[in-house]
Amino acid sequence: MYADHFSIDNIPFGIGSSEFHSRETVVTRLEDTVFFLDELAEAGVFKILKDETVKTFSEPTVNNFAALQKSEQLATRKAIQALFANGLESLRSLPPQSYSSIAETRLYLPLAIGDFTDFSCSRDHVLNASEAVFKKRELPPGFEYFPVGYTARTSSIVISGTKIKRPKGQYRDGEKVVFGPTRRLDYELEVACVIGKGNKLGDSIRVEDADEHIFGLVLLNDWSARDIQGLEMNPLGPLNGKSFSTSISPWIITLEALAPFKAQAPKKNPDIEVASYLQDSDSRSSYSIDLSASIESKVSTDTICTTNFDTLYWTLRDLVAHQTVNGCNLNTGDLLATGTVSGTTAESHGCLMEMAASGGVQVSSGKGESLKKMWLEDGDIVRLVGKAGPGVGFGDCKGEIVAAQS
Amino acid sequence: MYADHFSIDNIPFGIGSSEFHSRETVVTRLEDTVFFLDELAEAGVFKILKDETVKTFSEPTVNNFAALQKSEQLATRKAIQALFANGLESLRSLPPQSYSSIAETRLYLPLAIGDFTDFSCSRDHVLNASEAVFKKRELPPGFEYFPVGYTARTSSIVISGTKIKRPKGQYRDGEKVVFGPTRRLDYELEVACVIGKGNKLGDSIRVEDADEHIFGLVLLNDWSARDIQGLEMNPLGPLNGKSFSTSISPWIITLEALAPFKAQAPKKNPDIEVASYLQDSDSRSSYSIDLSASIESKVSTDTICTTNFDTLYWTLRDLVAHQTVNGCNLNTGDLLATGTVSGTTAESHGCLMEMAASGGVQVSSGKGESLKKMWLEDGDIVRLVGKAGPGVGFGDCKGEIVAAQS
Repeated sequence: MYADHFSIDNIPFGIGSSEFHSRETVVTRLEDTVFFLDELAEAGVFKILKDETVKTFSEPTVNNFAALQKSEQLATRKAIQALFANGLESLRSLPPQSYSSIAETRLYLPLAIGDFTDFSCSRDHVLNASEAVFKKRELPPGFEYFPVGYTARTSSIVISGTKIKRPKGQYRDGEKVVFGPTRRLDYELEVACVIGKGNKLGDSIRVEDADEHIFGLVLLNDWSARDIQGLEMNPLGPLNGKSFSTSISPWIITLEALAPFKAQAPKKNPDIEVASYLQDSDSRSSYSIDLSASIESKVSTDTICTTNFDTLYWTLRDLVAHQTVNGCNLNTGDLLATGTVSGTTAESHGCLMEMAASGGVQVSSGKGESLKKMWLEDGDIVRLVGKAGPGVGFGDCKGEIVAAQS
Repeated sequence: MYADHFSIDNIPFGIGSSEFHSRETVVTRLEDTVFFLDELAEAGVFKILKDETVKTFSEPTVNNFAALQKSEQLATRKAIQALFANGLESLRSLPPQSYSSIAETRLYLPLAIGDFTDFSCSRDHVLNASEAVFKKRELPPGFEYFPVGYTARTSSIVISGTKIKRPKGQYRDGEKVVFGPTRRLDYELEVACVIGKGNKLGDSIRVEDADEHIFGLVLLNDWSARDIQGLEMNPLGPLNGKSFSTSISPWIITLEALAPFKAQAPKKNPDIEVASYLQDSDSRSSYSIDLSASIESKVSTDTICTTNFDTLYWTLRDLVAHQTVNGCNLNTGDLLATGTVSGTTAESHGCLMEMAASGGVQVSSGKGESLKKMWLEDGDIVRLVGKAGPGVGFGDCKGEIVAAQS
């Protein structure tokens, strides 16, 4: 699946193992075939690279590769592209432990993640969320000045495909506060950037230099229990409504693969003078990435959101500059996520909460009719998909809801 | 200093090095002398312990020791106490690399910290904060139902003594939003528990079992830039107003050392029925720990807060139960902090914000007069001290404010 996301122009990085390569190490992918970089090195593919680069291919996370100089990462990409230049058929002579089909590969969380910040970059999402919760379309006070965000849990970040257990918590039921499994389980369609090279505590990263610190991007589903979140988040933000699980896609798509899809971010509010550290001389610092979410239930599969990354008010470069302007240090493997990516139309709302006010999202009943769905049910599979353009995509990030602990 | 905090009844754990023991490994302390556990093992002190326990003494963090069964940790404590039983003079025969004076020991961040949650356990603090910000004494909606908290940054957690650079950020100046060094730099007097044994994603820890998962406690200063925090925290909570630095004390004080100082937490609001997972059969599940904060400026040193841990509405056991009730997994080394520990009187306010409405905190001018201080200035040293009782204390957690990056 998604073979057309992984052409020679993509060259993603992840962590995998297979029957013939039982150790979890760094992998890449061409169409539906996964390649183990440590074995390609053995086969002489990476003679041009430094030893310290090749060493990172044998590790159980992509972190040390992501921390390398961009020039070494680029040389790796080019060496892999040279290997792939004559197509998959030409690669059958490689040793059998050096590749496996995607169906026969097990993929793992590709990163050791030290910190995870979830920002709120979509103007449409925050307006829709404000309407859903407060019945008025209001931006948070800081929204047009800087990317508003919160620190999120890292221990419960899981790889796509991991089942998501319905969390328990406290929430309002009319005037009463009750405890039980969430009744308002939601997904959030997001993208996160993976930090490559970090910065020292006390230093800041200029917005113009931010790309030097971004290794690549992943899809991220910020599962949310809206009722638990609603009671707890005033005034310190969400905690138990979010911390039960966050899913990311297995493949990290590099900035180099995404470069042809650079795009302009929406115009900023001209009445607000943005602080100097967020004034980016590169006007095309966003990316055009088609994003979608679907729900597969027992009776039907429905695409419930189609949107694009380039609708986001703040760019990934802005996130890096803002997060470090106070001297906060980023480490390799940290995630900075965009928050829900929503567009202006009802078809482009990146979470269910935004649809709740209008009675839910339209799905098929499985009997040729349609009905409205408010929240995720046990057994639902949510699948996020991202594709930048021909041959370059993220594949998917999926998770199935399972019943709460009894 | 603080020799009387570290009697034979304490036996704290930390990470240190010295001239004769250059590797950073696990240390304990008796009065003003620090002992390297790996060298004590070489000297035959820990023959009773399992090999895997002794191995943890050579590591650069306390994590693996903290993850052991409590029985092994207790056996370690008892073996150290047996060694110390005849006083410091009796220990001069130990090899010179096995100990050093506290003045000649370098101490390090004792933990690899995966996640850090900062809760808000003090009723007085939230009422005072509400008054300072909103001019009304109101509890957050969830406060009496569960410990409200937020996920905080781990990358910028530093060891006591590390200088704290004044952060830059955006904040309101009248009607305008401006960017610059914070004008409202504050400290927060807190205590955090260190997670020993973790739990699996999807599982919960019962409040009655929480002590099995708490290795010990540290002092924590949650440095806060109130102006930056004020603009950003609606609705997702604090980010850049906090993430620039958090200090912790070097010594982890175990629950065993604190056991004699167990105390009753304040009575809960009888009108609120607390959820079952927060009903603790142990009514003495808090601790009596005297806490203080002082500011040393160029002209004077003033104690600006004296309070006690036992004033907190929610206990550390409550924090563990609440954080995991949604299936969130805790890992060894995670920190769960109490939030600012304030009492009912003006002398027991654990941060400057609570004093701002009344014109600031009273300090000496250095010329026999007193004046009011609103916020921290460059050069100020904030020192937190915690002492549970005779022979058992935390020492201090200090930090000096240095000027913002030009």
